[in-house]
Amino acid sequence: MTAHPPTDELLRLRASIDNLDAALIYLLAERFKLTKEVGVYKAAKNLPPADPAREKEQVKRLRALAEQSALDPDFAEKLLNFIIQEVIHHHERMRG
Amino acid sequence: MTAHPPTDELLRLRASIDNLDAALIYLLAERFKLTKEVGVYKAAKNLPPADPAREKEQVKRLRALAEQSALDPDFAEKLLNFIIQEVIHHHERMRG
Repeated sequence: MTAHPPTDELLRLRASIDNLDAALIYLLAERFKLTKEVGVYKAAKNLPPADPAREKEQVKRLRALAEQSALDPDFAEKLLNFIIQEVIHHHERMRG
Repeated sequence: MTAHPPTDELLRLRASIDNLDAALIYLLAERFKLTKEVGVYKAAKNLPPADPAREKEQVKRLRALAEQSALDPDFAEKLLNFIIQEVIHHHERMRG
């Protein structure tokens, strides 16, 4: 499959990465259930899909958490924006 | 702060989203520790930063996990690619 067959060390690291990725997927699945509920709520109340004040608070909080956990805060912010764009896209579809 | 003050229902949903986001950040911090170890290993062995065969397996597995957890598999794939691009960027910096 690969030009460089993985060693035990690489297999060990990849097995842990795979475990974390599974956890990330399941957490994101729960997160989208919640944002779907938010979307239903907003559509019912005729609220706009995006909420810049809320997003600003989320960015600030996640950057602080990233710093505490030694994750690059810029990456955390980019990732949150990536997820939020998907959520807004969902909300727009719900209203459309 | 917002033109539409959030209700109890919205606050409840957002508090759970915030908890999941904190968990996501801490998992990602651990994931980047592991991919950093992979990067050190690859640099030492002079292996290329990207591994298309490994990435193909990861995409397949994460799409299956996404389906099991009712997450959009296309979103799961896009997110994995987003994270992998960041990892490759880190690995390239390590070699550069």
